[in-house]
Amino acid sequence: MAKQDRAIRTRQTILDAAAQVFEKQGYQAATITEILKVAGVTKGALYFHFQSKEELALGVFDAQEPPQAVPEQPLRLQELIDMGMLFCHRLRTNVVARAGVRLSMDQQAHGLDRRGPFRRWHETLLKLLNQAKENGELLPHVVTTDSADLYVGTFAGIQVVSQTVSDYQDLEHRYALLQKHILPAIAVPSVLAALDLSEERGARLAAELAPTGKD
Amino acid sequence: MAKQDRAIRTRQTILDAAAQVFEKQGYQAATITEILKVAGVTKGALYFHFQSKEELALGVFDAQEPPQAVPEQPLRLQELIDMGMLFCHRLRTNVVARAGVRLSMDQQAHGLDRRGPFRRWHETLLKLLNQAKENGELLPHVVTTDSADLYVGTFAGIQVVSQTVSDYQDLEHRYALLQKHILPAIAVPSVLAALDLSEERGARLAAELAPTGKD
Repeated sequence: MAKQDRAIRTRQTILDAAAQVFEKQGYQAATITEILKVAGVTKGALYFHFQSKEELALGVFDAQEPPQAVPEQPLRLQELIDMGMLFCHRLRTNVVARAGVRLSMDQQAHGLDRRGPFRRWHETLLKLLNQAKENGELLPHVVTTDSADLYVGTFAGIQVVSQTVSDYQDLEHRYALLQKHILPAIAVPSVLAALDLSEERGARLAAELAPTGKD
Repeated sequence: MAKQDRAIRTRQTILDAAAQVFEKQGYQAATITEILKVAGVTKGALYFHFQSKEELALGVFDAQEPPQAVPEQPLRLQELIDMGMLFCHRLRTNVVARAGVRLSMDQQAHGLDRRGPFRRWHETLLKLLNQAKENGELLPHVVTTDSADLYVGTFAGIQVVSQTVSDYQDLEHRYALLQKHILPAIAVPSVLAALDLSEERGARLAAELAPTGKD
């Protein structure tokens, strides 16, 4: 294995360990000592990649953020739906995704700039909404930046409630409900009728993406 | 002052102190010792009202939950909107409201049952939605329990994002946006056109309620 490959693997090992500790302890209570113990790497290796607890948290944010790719669809709104479905699936299967969301919602994480994930989700969704608008998928009055804002905030909320009441078991169901309530305010009727909100889409999309190593 | 009045005041003093400490520290890091210091009451007084940190947190939940009353309106959906507007206003002006929300969203609050606030908001909104349905304000396909669920989760999310990016300065704006996106999926068009989503409603309603001591 080349030196660079080894470094990438070590970095990933550290991030996975950090995610486990952040998810369990929250930002304030997490310590680099515990992350080192879980990762099983040397202090030197960790500090080579991350200078501080904040950098570790920011690394977790980067690693969990909007899926880089969803399979292309005829409708951009379907891709937007799919991005959320895929993320629901990841939240249930991937500790880094869970830790990233947990950290971004951690109102006790003093000293950690939590605006990045919200901003980046906003940008990703805005891009899709603007493309949907160009395609004629949106109602004429829709202000895409408002709708992007709304998706970011509302998704953040339903995931906390889902985690609280069902440990994420009902997350796809809540997400489909969210879309059923928001889409009629933004999509033209013919597009609305063509969108697929099946709750098992997330798992299906993840399986489709897996062989390419994108999930 | 009668003995009972004094007890009620002491209880309120303790709850205010607990709210301050919970809001600043989160559930895990908060200690009864610090709450005692902020409240300036004796240990005996505190333990007379609250047996544990969890009971203090549950007391904060009870104190911040759905506004008991909003001014009556011709449309039940307007009352539902107003309940949220009033709560936005409280979040910016009342530490107990802020602490309650913070605690209910605190995914690091191990050992604290955080389901109560979500359940009670759900019940309150469901009652209003069912009344709106009886009044013919809702579209025929609306499942009121789904919509109540959705309001609880989405509001929870927009308040975190608002707190994160603007320290609640844009909360009423985000709340109005939320309603503008959800109402078209549930309200009949004539009702939709009659609803007031002005961002200053919260402050106005609070002032209206204040003389009766309900805020």
